[in-house]
Amino acid sequence: MTTPSRRDLANAIRFLAIDAVQAANSGHPGMPMGMADIAEVLWNDYLSHNPDNPKWFNRDRFILSNGHGSMLQYALLHLAGYDLPLDELKNFRQLDSRTPGHPENFMTPGVETTTGPLGQGFANAVGMALAEKLLAQRFNRPEFPVVDHRTWVFMGDGCLMEGISHEAASLAGTWGLGKLVAFWDDNKISIDGNTDGWFTDDTPARFEAYGWNVIRGVDGHDPDEVRRAIEAALKSSDKPTLVCCRTTIGFGSPNKAGKESSHGAALGADEVKATREALGWAHDAFVVPQEIQDAWNAAEAGAAREAEWGALFDGYARQFPEQAAELQRRANATLPETFLADADAYIAKLQADGPVVASRKASQMAIEAFAPLLPELVGGSADLAHSNLTLWKGSKSVATDDADANYIYFGVREFAMTAISNGLSLHGGFIPYDATFLVFSDYARNAVRMSALMGAHAIHVYTHDSIGLGEDGPTHQPVEHLASLRYIPDNDVWRPCDAVESAVAWKAAIVRNDAPSCLVFSRQNLDHQPRSEAQVADIARGAYVLKDSVGAPEIILIATGSEVGLAVKAAEQIGDKARVVSMPSSDVFDRQDADYKESVLPNACRRRVAVEAGMSDFWRKYVGLDGAVIGIDTFGASAPIQQLMPHFGFTVEKVVEAAKGL
Amino acid sequence: MTTPSRRDLANAIRFLAIDAVQAANSGHPGMPMGMADIAEVLWNDYLSHNPDNPKWFNRDRFILSNGHGSMLQYALLHLAGYDLPLDELKNFRQLDSRTPGHPENFMTPGVETTTGPLGQGFANAVGMALAEKLLAQRFNRPEFPVVDHRTWVFMGDGCLMEGISHEAASLAGTWGLGKLVAFWDDNKISIDGNTDGWFTDDTPARFEAYGWNVIRGVDGHDPDEVRRAIEAALKSSDKPTLVCCRTTIGFGSPNKAGKESSHGAALGADEVKATREALGWAHDAFVVPQEIQDAWNAAEAGAAREAEWGALFDGYARQFPEQAAELQRRANATLPETFLADADAYIAKLQADGPVVASRKASQMAIEAFAPLLPELVGGSADLAHSNLTLWKGSKSVATDDADANYIYFGVREFAMTAISNGLSLHGGFIPYDATFLVFSDYARNAVRMSALMGAHAIHVYTHDSIGLGEDGPTHQPVEHLASLRYIPDNDVWRPCDAVESAVAWKAAIVRNDAPSCLVFSRQNLDHQPRSEAQVADIARGAYVLKDSVGAPEIILIATGSEVGLAVKAAEQIGDKARVVSMPSSDVFDRQDADYKESVLPNACRRRVAVEAGMSDFWRKYVGLDGAVIGIDTFGASAPIQQLMPHFGFTVEKVVEAAKGL
Repeated sequence: MTTPSRRDLANAIRFLAIDAVQAANSGHPGMPMGMADIAEVLWNDYLSHNPDNPKWFNRDRFILSNGHGSMLQYALLHLAGYDLPLDELKNFRQLDSRTPGHPENFMTPGVETTTGPLGQGFANAVGMALAEKLLAQRFNRPEFPVVDHRTWVFMGDGCLMEGISHEAASLAGTWGLGKLVAFWDDNKISIDGNTDGWFTDDTPARFEAYGWNVIRGVDGHDPDEVRRAIEAALKSSDKPTLVCCRTTIGFGSPNKAGKESSHGAALGADEVKATREALGWAHDAFVVPQEIQDAWNAAEAGAAREAEWGALFDGYARQFPEQAAELQRRANATLPETFLADADAYIAKLQADGPVVASRKASQMAIEAFAPLLPELVGGSADLAHSNLTLWKGSKSVATDDADANYIYFGVREFAMTAISNGLSLHGGFIPYDATFLVFSDYARNAVRMSALMGAHAIHVYTHDSIGLGEDGPTHQPVEHLASLRYIPDNDVWRPCDAVESAVAWKAAIVRNDAPSCLVFSRQNLDHQPRSEAQVADIARGAYVLKDSVGAPEIILIATGSEVGLAVKAAEQIGDKARVVSMPSSDVFDRQDADYKESVLPNACRRRVAVEAGMSDFWRKYVGLDGAVIGIDTFGASAPIQQLMPHFGFTVEKVVEAAKGL
Repeated sequence: MTTPSRRDLANAIRFLAIDAVQAANSGHPGMPMGMADIAEVLWNDYLSHNPDNPKWFNRDRFILSNGHGSMLQYALLHLAGYDLPLDELKNFRQLDSRTPGHPENFMTPGVETTTGPLGQGFANAVGMALAEKLLAQRFNRPEFPVVDHRTWVFMGDGCLMEGISHEAASLAGTWGLGKLVAFWDDNKISIDGNTDGWFTDDTPARFEAYGWNVIRGVDGHDPDEVRRAIEAALKSSDKPTLVCCRTTIGFGSPNKAGKESSHGAALGADEVKATREALGWAHDAFVVPQEIQDAWNAAEAGAAREAEWGALFDGYARQFPEQAAELQRRANATLPETFLADADAYIAKLQADGPVVASRKASQMAIEAFAPLLPELVGGSADLAHSNLTLWKGSKSVATDDADANYIYFGVREFAMTAISNGLSLHGGFIPYDATFLVFSDYARNAVRMSALMGAHAIHVYTHDSIGLGEDGPTHQPVEHLASLRYIPDNDVWRPCDAVESAVAWKAAIVRNDAPSCLVFSRQNLDHQPRSEAQVADIARGAYVLKDSVGAPEIILIATGSEVGLAVKAAEQIGDKARVVSMPSSDVFDRQDADYKESVLPNACRRRVAVEAGMSDFWRKYVGLDGAVIGIDTFGASAPIQQLMPHFGFTVEKVVEAAKGL
């Protein structure tokens, strides 16, 4: 048995990718062929992981930001010994296979984050590296580096063209994330061809401008050069590293190497054959010789690595039992035992006290109440701390090495902020929150979608939630955003009507740990609403009867947030046959059982008016063709709120009129 | 009468801003106070404009990308002699004033683009500078530089932190937009305070990495330094210029200068008084001494400038009458005389020919048909040319100096792409189109919103419009996007069902010149639908009866795009009481008169089924509480389309079943 060469090992990746794409007749062979040599060195010589336990907490994180090259990752996972058998690779891109078109964190063991939307994997990685830094500075003790791992990223030209790469790289530089290493697949080809016509940045100089350690001119097909670059990266303790690897897309393909034709389609049977010959790979499709499989298999080494860490952790637990228990609690995403009771007590007290505040202020009060109970809560704002009200008494910047660092000054970087939140959540040990104005959720929109797709437990705080913000005008006034965010699957949007609902929304967002929540708050003060204990409990069901009719309702007013007060006042004028339903979260309400839904919105009552300072069409799902909606279907305007709300029809009179018109 | 000093002139800006913000008790004084000296030099010594004709085609474009400093722009426009009287400044941020919280291109003469959402003004400016370059290379002749102006941008730290600044700056560098000059307001303060904690980029080095001409270390309060910097910028013919101006936010305020407290709130009466004293401005609120007014007034000089250009243009028109007429036609946004008839002939021929193609292919056929008629059509794709099918036979890259350059290789930069389209449109002379996958409209979302808010005539092409794209999986499969884009006010979304509807959608998007359109196309082939001439004409009404019932309909199937074929087949099975409504644009349909709407969707018929591979809740506005929707309310999956469509319930059987269940 001969010892396989490094090129042989890399070719195993190449041909698994080539063959899987060929079998599916769909996919992206060019990138795996181009980055195989880099991946081989990284995975075989440096990556600290355990294929038998993909969730080992102290593992290195490997992120494929150029996720279209998913077969690279599947080949690596398969070869290294993860639970991803060859049959899965043969079923690449087929329904219910664990090898979907792009890597999905919820489908494949060892995939840390879902990638494909370019640039976001890189930003997720920045979040993961930040998570490692913060956990290390909180939990590590001399002789006990129990949190100590690296975050490795593969990224292509596409990731680097995207704006989010700027935002994320800038923050990584500012935070000095020395354990973050990104490999740039510098192949000069993107989908439209040679990048000379549209990508002329001096990328190394750009990253140096962000304070990165940049290693230039590495031959990505020379394992020794790659090794040397990684060794240099390992020496950079206070700067993240960019390794600039010159590569050839579709490396080894006689007719498609270096060309965009290798990027996004199967090579074709003839070219697959020619590539086998060119690279001297004399094996059938999906066949990897045993000695190459053996050389790749990392199960034993991985188990030893985790065992070594386990011994370290045991010593730590003996010497620092509280910290060890706390780290385990956070790693397991378990809330502190008393949290639910404490939160409910806080909510009950709010209901009793009845503060009249803006819901953004109520949000800050909730953070102030909950954050001391939850050291895993880490977050901040995109340069709007004093508007979003995200700071609390215990806030300490993550840019420091303080053990209690928990506050992120994201700067004006909504997209990277949100993707970094996703990374913090996926790393584990944290419940991240981020914040901006609701209208600028647009800037982050695909990262919110990715939170939901990945089941990331990230809390997105959006204040200034309607024309009610006043003078800043239509650029700052959300109109379509509530509906648009609600339409993202598996994303819970909350728009509370007072301080009590705001605290319930925060609690719900903290408790629901397999999905993101968007918490939407007002700039302006909101009335406190009286409630029974049962009503307080029902807030968590997304919608509930806030003010009931005498007998069966003849008219139902449905409202959210700042419009709930309006609906209550209108109901008082309409008379005792009117019911008011407060619906802080239509997403949550829609998940309730049919009986509860019928009890809140009886099907027989079709005289319904929805009131929300947002797109009216959204509400047709609750009021139907025959109900009425007081909404706003145009852009807003710049004026004080006192002028704006009546100007756009948000008055008690209009609601009464609409109800009477039914 | 003394000649006012430059500082006096700048102070006029400062105090108009201070006084207006104080009167409104809302707004942002710090930036106008900080950038007043730069603005004064630029406007009084360099800006080529004519206050009496804000639409003079060859004017310099001035863009306030840091739009929260709107009072800077209003003060400049007022002082220079635009139709913006002092009373408007006194009504800053009040309902219906021409001085809204952020500059709005549709409200205030001289405001080129709406700004406030950070970074986008800068990207708009890149689009405007590109427009100038392209028009110049097409129309200018030796001795006749009839298109010859600069684009000047003010931008702050916030703009530079945003990812879009990366995308836009990179393209401006690649394109060598020498007439673009950006002033960076380097004041080291953003809303959260001193930027040291979150903005540590070496911005000059970063812009050099993009191929910009960077002028470092300019004292933004020294008019001579600013002049020298501008002189240097004027010498840069093949690179855009970044002028890095060190400034003090809130300059002149004894207690708030250099602090974030001057950024976003009125200074307060005491501080206003103190600032008056500190800057030696002994005039009452809103009072500008006559000699300062006179020194600022640019009406006479502007009229002379335009007259001089007019004489040049007259000479050009004599020597090159065709080109002159064509330039005027394009500047006036008038379509070629025969366009409508030619487009209709093309549509009629398509109806007769009945090609079965993907609608993305039909889109390319429409471009191929219309682009030769419309030299103002300029556009491209975010590195997906061969997927979006945006290239046509006459495509020539704008990175060249070809007179016919019309194709933009945007690279993977969806957000800047869209904002650049907005800039091209707002500049005039172009109908821009841009393209990406529908799911990645998320990356550009706020720029699409800005297209709509500004009434920019930009055409956004989105292909791969549903789970029907297949194997790429949920990251690439739009679900909520159709509904979300439709909810943006004043934005026409089209999702055509075949080649004919695709051509009609393109025609509608070209004709509707005061709003954007989103054209949404399939990856997969779509059946051709038979139609009468009247039906073909009704496509333009957004929805129409494609297949009618015998007698009044008892069931109505409403469908769009790839689901129309499904609905037609289902109707055949349901029987002759079923009507099929094709609704390529709900936005356009909603604008039709009540009679037409009733004729398509008679109120009496409530047995309605909507079929669209997107969020079902959107369709409640047409089917109500009692109808049915075949939609998709979860994320998609990675698999071939043949498996996916039935997996998610898009089959004739399911539609029939839903209809029969009503």
